[in-house]
Amino acid sequence: MPRYAFLIEYDGTPFRGWQRQAGQPSVQAAVEAAIARLEPEAPGIAAAGRTDTGVHATGQVAHCDLAQGWDPLRLREALNHHLRPAPVAVLACARVEDAFHARFSAVERRYLFRILNRRAPPALAAGQVWHLRHPLELAPMQAAARHLLGHHDFTTFRASQCQAHSPLRTLDELTVSAQPVPHGTEYHFALRARSFLHNQVRSIVGTLERVGAGAWAPDAVRDALQARDRAACGPVAPPQGLCLTGVGYPHDPFA
Amino acid sequence: MPRYAFLIEYDGTPFRGWQRQAGQPSVQAAVEAAIARLEPEAPGIAAAGRTDTGVHATGQVAHCDLAQGWDPLRLREALNHHLRPAPVAVLACARVEDAFHARFSAVERRYLFRILNRRAPPALAAGQVWHLRHPLELAPMQAAARHLLGHHDFTTFRASQCQAHSPLRTLDELTVSAQPVPHGTEYHFALRARSFLHNQVRSIVGTLERVGAGAWAPDAVRDALQARDRAACGPVAPPQGLCLTGVGYPHDPFA
Repeated sequence: MPRYAFLIEYDGTPFRGWQRQAGQPSVQAAVEAAIARLEPEAPGIAAAGRTDTGVHATGQVAHCDLAQGWDPLRLREALNHHLRPAPVAVLACARVEDAFHARFSAVERRYLFRILNRRAPPALAAGQVWHLRHPLELAPMQAAARHLLGHHDFTTFRASQCQAHSPLRTLDELTVSAQPVPHGTEYHFALRARSFLHNQVRSIVGTLERVGAGAWAPDAVRDALQARDRAACGPVAPPQGLCLTGVGYPHDPFA
Repeated sequence: MPRYAFLIEYDGTPFRGWQRQAGQPSVQAAVEAAIARLEPEAPGIAAAGRTDTGVHATGQVAHCDLAQGWDPLRLREALNHHLRPAPVAVLACARVEDAFHARFSAVERRYLFRILNRRAPPALAAGQVWHLRHPLELAPMQAAARHLLGHHDFTTFRASQCQAHSPLRTLDELTVSAQPVPHGTEYHFALRARSFLHNQVRSIVGTLERVGAGAWAPDAVRDALQARDRAACGPVAPPQGLCLTGVGYPHDPFA
């Protein structure tokens, strides 16, 4: 059976995350239902990142084996037709080798976390930012972020229910930037790693936010990391500011 | 009675435009209802731009006379509290002189129109872009836009129900730019003028889109302008791509 990869964008707001769960709306179930309109016997799909409830994606990747040899462009059109009106869009489809696996072949995941820092609530970006009214400072968050770059035991920044065998991960990028918006600032946290632990991004952002607010010194983040203790973590940032922006493979299936 | 100016952001999706209409949800009615929670006898408010159904704003300005001398920061907090959960946010309040009028004192309006040009529908930007599947070209749209810059009779680009006394307007900026997005392009149309005719921005963008699609030559836009005939206009672009991004005054009330 030919294998296909899908590049997927979604608004996570109405879903209980990527992963299919009985009786709950999920992105996986929405995509599988669209595939089933084309091939009722198609097997389930696997994704690179199993995003949590309320987390968005502009670059999720999944794969599926289909019985027919579909033209990738027509497959994309048909899936988008059947996905309506769910806020899920297939940006691209590609025929891939049988050895390709959306999750296990991935060598990089990229995430963006957005904080809207102003007194007024978000109107146009509602559901896509973490809204904070108290002032944040950029430089301390950048200083603290440097402690987390590289290869570490991230036990502190890992959900207690995380099922990964090892807490060791290599954080290849953690860039904190700020851009002015009317009467406020939007902070962007860009993270890149081969893989992440469960809740690692939101745990890191929630801890850096404490530094930006002045509640923690930047060096306290190094101490928290070295503690290798979940209790040393700051609060976990809420899901709606998080977006899976891309997944890297040795050969980009959609190039 | 002290006069206050309000800088307002809103998602136009659930509203029948800015202006209050009996039995219809409007941004004006939402803001007036929030003001009435503070001062039940407050008069109605006036805005710089009476945006249509589905049009958004990040920089709308309105004013109102209140009986009490409110601290502007506390007034903003109180209004945002009472506006919940409507997607309307007061970014700033300012005490202004009695001669200030949000509409008549304005010397500049700025609009942004967004086209998402890709095969897949928008998931995260749904309701905030005009989605077009057929390819558009940037350079012809930029060439056509140059014909519209400056002082002209814009009868062609004016809604038949437009109530302005004169069709003469001076378009100070009409910049068309493109930025790549995954498997597509987002086009931005930035327009700036002292004031606009009814539907002028959407009529211009809808006509430039025909040029980008190759259906019109760039010079046909000059001919359409010179025709001074509504029938010479291209299709009017839909409202959801449009956003009022700012209003200029001789002295910025919110500086």
